[in-house]
Amino acid sequence: MAKGFTTREQDYSKWYNELVVKADLAETSDVRGCMVIKPYGFAIWEKMQAELDRMFKATGHQNAYFPLFIPKSYLSKEASHVEGFAKECAVVTHYRLKNDPDGSGVIVDPEAKLEEELIVRPTSETIIWSTYKKWIQSYRDLPLLINQWANVVRWEMRTRLFLRTAEFLWQEGHTAHATENEAIEEAEQMLRVYAEFAENHMAMPVVQGTKTESERFAGALETYCIEALMQDGKALQAGTSHFLGQNFAKAFDVKYTSKEGKEEFVWATSWGVSTRLMGGLIMTHSDDNGLVLPPKLAPIQVAIIPIYRQEDQLDAVTEKVKPIKAALEAKGISVKYDDRDTHKPGWKFNEYEFKGVPVRLAMGPRDIENGTVEVARRDTLEKEIVAIDKVVEHVAKLMVEIQENLYKKAIQHRTENTTEVSTYDEFKEVIKAKGGFVLAHWDGTAETEERIKQETKATVRCIPLEGDKTPGTCVFSGKPSKRKVLFAKAY
Amino acid sequence: MAKGFTTREQDYSKWYNELVVKADLAETSDVRGCMVIKPYGFAIWEKMQAELDRMFKATGHQNAYFPLFIPKSYLSKEASHVEGFAKECAVVTHYRLKNDPDGSGVIVDPEAKLEEELIVRPTSETIIWSTYKKWIQSYRDLPLLINQWANVVRWEMRTRLFLRTAEFLWQEGHTAHATENEAIEEAEQMLRVYAEFAENHMAMPVVQGTKTESERFAGALETYCIEALMQDGKALQAGTSHFLGQNFAKAFDVKYTSKEGKEEFVWATSWGVSTRLMGGLIMTHSDDNGLVLPPKLAPIQVAIIPIYRQEDQLDAVTEKVKPIKAALEAKGISVKYDDRDTHKPGWKFNEYEFKGVPVRLAMGPRDIENGTVEVARRDTLEKEIVAIDKVVEHVAKLMVEIQENLYKKAIQHRTENTTEVSTYDEFKEVIKAKGGFVLAHWDGTAETEERIKQETKATVRCIPLEGDKTPGTCVFSGKPSKRKVLFAKAY
Repeated sequence: MAKGFTTREQDYSKWYNELVVKADLAETSDVRGCMVIKPYGFAIWEKMQAELDRMFKATGHQNAYFPLFIPKSYLSKEASHVEGFAKECAVVTHYRLKNDPDGSGVIVDPEAKLEEELIVRPTSETIIWSTYKKWIQSYRDLPLLINQWANVVRWEMRTRLFLRTAEFLWQEGHTAHATENEAIEEAEQMLRVYAEFAENHMAMPVVQGTKTESERFAGALETYCIEALMQDGKALQAGTSHFLGQNFAKAFDVKYTSKEGKEEFVWATSWGVSTRLMGGLIMTHSDDNGLVLPPKLAPIQVAIIPIYRQEDQLDAVTEKVKPIKAALEAKGISVKYDDRDTHKPGWKFNEYEFKGVPVRLAMGPRDIENGTVEVARRDTLEKEIVAIDKVVEHVAKLMVEIQENLYKKAIQHRTENTTEVSTYDEFKEVIKAKGGFVLAHWDGTAETEERIKQETKATVRCIPLEGDKTPGTCVFSGKPSKRKVLFAKAY
Repeated sequence: MAKGFTTREQDYSKWYNELVVKADLAETSDVRGCMVIKPYGFAIWEKMQAELDRMFKATGHQNAYFPLFIPKSYLSKEASHVEGFAKECAVVTHYRLKNDPDGSGVIVDPEAKLEEELIVRPTSETIIWSTYKKWIQSYRDLPLLINQWANVVRWEMRTRLFLRTAEFLWQEGHTAHATENEAIEEAEQMLRVYAEFAENHMAMPVVQGTKTESERFAGALETYCIEALMQDGKALQAGTSHFLGQNFAKAFDVKYTSKEGKEEFVWATSWGVSTRLMGGLIMTHSDDNGLVLPPKLAPIQVAIIPIYRQEDQLDAVTEKVKPIKAALEAKGISVKYDDRDTHKPGWKFNEYEFKGVPVRLAMGPRDIENGTVEVARRDTLEKEIVAIDKVVEHVAKLMVEIQENLYKKAIQHRTENTTEVSTYDEFKEVIKAKGGFVLAHWDGTAETEERIKQETKATVRCIPLEGDKTPGTCVFSGKPSKRKVLFAKAY
């Protein structure tokens, strides 16, 4: 299966595109910019969703559902929001089709024109805050901690599967609070939830930080983000959490009466991660043999493949496999026993390797004689022979080991590809020749940020929350800098 | 809370509308015909989803995700499909907004007109079958058993929360098979899954049957359905499963090579249930005191309310409640201990009663003295005093009992409101005076069906799969009838 598969060295971008399609994760659809998420890809997304949903609920959030459509005028209610969002949107103008008089199909019925156009939500702050106005009167109604799993549409011109698509799936949290501090704490808490999910479940190390003013979400006072480093040295913004101040409360007139009887505007946050995480997952771990999945997110954690020529050999293997499969499943490990007679073992080996199944077991007549199983791990491609009565424990241990190993490798890659520079020449050289994260002093102005971007294509990914906070001078302008910030070229 | 609440007797329709809003299930949004599903309503929907999803996976299905948009021309590819569906749709014609030159907001950019309009999916057969063409080549690719959880839009003119909304949430299964028989078996299997879910989880009895030709899904050769009877004597179509023959395979040219090397068109099914089930759930069990939920779908199964005046009394109650709550949760029962000091016990009693929480426990200083708890069940409104050390077992038993009792009551209601008639006068009289299901002979023609509908507003809900299959003569035309069919006025 990996035959004819582009290597990362040859063309990282092509490697990614081929991998996504060949590993059955997603494909482009007939609708420009929209993807089809295939069952195997969707199963990974479901695992992500389940864990994130659990984490959201554990931190007190509830799910709800708001309309797909937003009246056009709502987008203009929060001034900076409309600047950032209103432009590239899918616009619904009519609500009916009719038969084409020439008999060739259907046409839009010109008489069914909407009085006010509807926008397919690119994000839901406006429709949600217009609803919160009805839900919030008193301090008793706060905090309001709501999340929505939904599809959103942003009419992107250049699209790439998972990384940037016109329609994508995501969750968007929208919370309302009585005080500024509580809202900031919420935004920071959700950033930590995202970071924990990325690191513990995706095995993808992230830097937590804040965005510069020019990269903030449209309508936010502060945008927190997690940034991950891909294998090709480019950064991926993997999740954002916004402190929205009272901007949306003011735009939609959402006030509450405090315990003391005073009327106050409500404080807000919003936060989201999307199917873009799938792109991050793929580009963090996969190799030239295909997808590599951390066990915690693998739909199939163990594939078992029988080796046989005759039917009775298959029966003998199946007999041995049954209790192993049952014992693994009893430990919560998902197992696929692939005894299809439509494909050869070699084909199956390639298939599960390419699809990133963490552990593959193989068993044939000789193994039965010897009381052994062949165990292959996807991350290192190592194979070993293990006694049948030890294999369940062994595989259970591998689940933990592989998860840890992938994270360790990713951390190592990031460490090796994070460079601190002290001059602009050095900065340019590293961005050009090596790529990766570059830590450099920056004077905090949008002009410098823009100039550096023009000249090097690198942008400030974030102002890290942790790390060295020593002041210095900007590598570009020589003006004072509060601390080094993280630059990179980005997806 | 139930104060000022309309009774079913007074106005069933108003009762329903008020209940949905006051029990925090859903509300209308600012977007015409679209609802907001509130957290409590959404939590019930999530429970439905989780169980249905489990059942779909147990029958071999996988989830995937297809685009929200469908190119206009796709709708015309299957001739009868377009007749049934293409008309009342949300049509996307533009992909960009721009600032209004007069500075007052945003307008649709006339230069960003799509070459071909996109329809927001009313159902996904066409976009999915255009994809299946790429996925299916050989018999090895079959059966293809896929489900999608999604939002869909049908521009309904008269909408009602959950029962008929412009946007709704649903699942749509779309399967492809090598043989006609296998496809029919699949459509019938999924009908059974729906019936089992409705009866065992929603405690809502359903009649399984097939639709008449005029009520079939646009593009189907056979539409199977489950029909439930609401408290007001009107029927609700709760789910449908369609055998689509080779119609979509032919429209989208989806062929497979059989084991024998022959090229054949693929056979198809599709099947779906939606947030409409929420309406069925509400109208099957609820009463003049508010919502009544079967334990299997109740987000909160047990509410515990402390009765106290002073802080130390609350502490004493909390001390006693803790192990009860823990023991119930250990049995998989969801418990809310509502010790908020912002509301009085009486308010809380009303709140949980109105929201249909199956069991409510109350405990105060006197209970502690006596070693007892007050246990109230929502379905019968009965209260009893139970010893603290017996309460966990007692409540666990109530979960089963209430689930069964609700189903039994619903069955009894349906039995009492199902009438067999042998003349058209009797038919009209029953439909007018009593309502409910009417079993009557029908000659099988669309003309008779239409005439009866015109005259009585009753339609053939289904031709039941089970029940008396004795032939007779049509109550309307006197012509031969193969068997009695099920009529009712319907939602």
